[in-house]
Amino acid sequence: MNAMRVNKLVICGVGLIGGSLARALKAADAVGEVVGVGRSEASLVRACELGVIDRAATSMEEAVRDADIVVLAAPVAQTPALLAAICPHLGGNTLVTDAGSTKSDAVAAARAALGGDAWRFVPGHPIAGAELSGVDAAKADLYRDRRVVLCPQPDNRIEDVARVRAMWEAAGARVSEMSERQHDRVFASVSHLPHVLSYALIAQILDAPDATLKFGFAGGGFRDFTRIAASNPEMWRDICVANRDALLAELDGYLATLGTLRQLIDAGDGAGLEAVFARTSQARTDWAKQQER
Amino acid sequence: MNAMRVNKLVICGVGLIGGSLARALKAADAVGEVVGVGRSEASLVRACELGVIDRAATSMEEAVRDADIVVLAAPVAQTPALLAAICPHLGGNTLVTDAGSTKSDAVAAARAALGGDAWRFVPGHPIAGAELSGVDAAKADLYRDRRVVLCPQPDNRIEDVARVRAMWEAAGARVSEMSERQHDRVFASVSHLPHVLSYALIAQILDAPDATLKFGFAGGGFRDFTRIAASNPEMWRDICVANRDALLAELDGYLATLGTLRQLIDAGDGAGLEAVFARTSQARTDWAKQQER
Repeated sequence: MNAMRVNKLVICGVGLIGGSLARALKAADAVGEVVGVGRSEASLVRACELGVIDRAATSMEEAVRDADIVVLAAPVAQTPALLAAICPHLGGNTLVTDAGSTKSDAVAAARAALGGDAWRFVPGHPIAGAELSGVDAAKADLYRDRRVVLCPQPDNRIEDVARVRAMWEAAGARVSEMSERQHDRVFASVSHLPHVLSYALIAQILDAPDATLKFGFAGGGFRDFTRIAASNPEMWRDICVANRDALLAELDGYLATLGTLRQLIDAGDGAGLEAVFARTSQARTDWAKQQER
Repeated sequence: MNAMRVNKLVICGVGLIGGSLARALKAADAVGEVVGVGRSEASLVRACELGVIDRAATSMEEAVRDADIVVLAAPVAQTPALLAAICPHLGGNTLVTDAGSTKSDAVAAARAALGGDAWRFVPGHPIAGAELSGVDAAKADLYRDRRVVLCPQPDNRIEDVARVRAMWEAAGARVSEMSERQHDRVFASVSHLPHVLSYALIAQILDAPDATLKFGFAGGGFRDFTRIAASNPEMWRDICVANRDALLAELDGYLATLGTLRQLIDAGDGAGLEAVFARTSQARTDWAKQQER
């Protein structure tokens, strides 16, 4: 179905996200050699054992100089340093893309680190994740029917954007495009903020004198609500820092909404509460139906 | 295993909660006749068709006078009116219990409505639910290995508390006891507050100019976080009103925790954020392991 093939793929940060991309492209026979770059030797050895990568890079220069595509899949705070390390060694046809959850910072980092080579960087974000992280959690079908957002830049070549798109499509994903500003606002709202809210609930309970009793009686609603609070702390630290402005805007909007609900509860305004709950419950139900299609 | 048997059980409010109790007791052969009381004729007819109840009550008097146990399983705002309607007809051995998510209000309502008969009321709360509601969602195994909290009162007879406990155990549940104050604080924290927070996120997105785009890119984390926002609006309206004081205390604590996280985000304090996320992520992971046992 897809004639796309990456001869040499370099994954910087071989965890759940990068590892699953490698596995998916291997399963689709859409990749030649997969070379891993990472901070942790042990993790790269494990990635080789699992067959997620073919080998660890011996140096950044060797890895990058004849690569077709370099994918940055480390926590987003590492993007500037990785781009700086890659920059001097980029081959004539090497493209760079990333898999970070924040895009304005990635665009800025690419402009700063790559300068006149910034046209090679096609920002991307696969909308997939799990409470698990690390290369052992990587799986070939993580991106099947999941969405990937690309934020093409004015200086990207059309054919390069198409190559990155084809790579993700070969991994099974559905690819959309939007501006990095739009992206960061959307994901601050539907992903970054919920993570902060979920972490905050656990933090509050941990600080309560009756924490043990509370955890002991937490049920199914709590389990769903806090599933994302088990997410990787470093990854989410970086996202909160990188997407600060959009996240603060959404958080302040949320605090205002919550303040309104607080007033209704304080006033014992059942009709007012029911109006909000009925509208949101219907919207959530409609959303779930839409997702099933 | 359990020799407990209820000869005549009256369910006031035959939805998910009351209907599942009826189904569970029938499946365990622990109940004789199940009589339903409810606001909606159609819903009682449906409950009969499904075999959840044996028949609808012809009057409250007829239903209650020779009942062994009357279970209040309607949204909690109806508790005072139901108790007042039941009170004149209580037979000599009839016990009343409830399945509401708030307990201080139920205790107060029983004292007000039952007066000298308040010893017959054993407050209860099964910790089970689903985003589905209504009698069609009722199932015999809803309470299997789920927890039920009873809040025995000083005037309850020990053998009556034991009968209500045995009924829930026959339905497959594990029964604990605590005071109504303790109960309301615990569930405000781990259940009521998360529902309000989840409803609030959906409300905020609905009011955003780019709501469609946001819903369109919402992924798995959003799905889990907002699952409880599809819950029954009337039920949650009543809970927020009935448990106002404990809920406001938890909500204010949460706003303080969220305010601290907001400061860390605003300051770009990655180390501070990571410390909170690492602690909460570990606690959530430990909690999930504990639950599996």
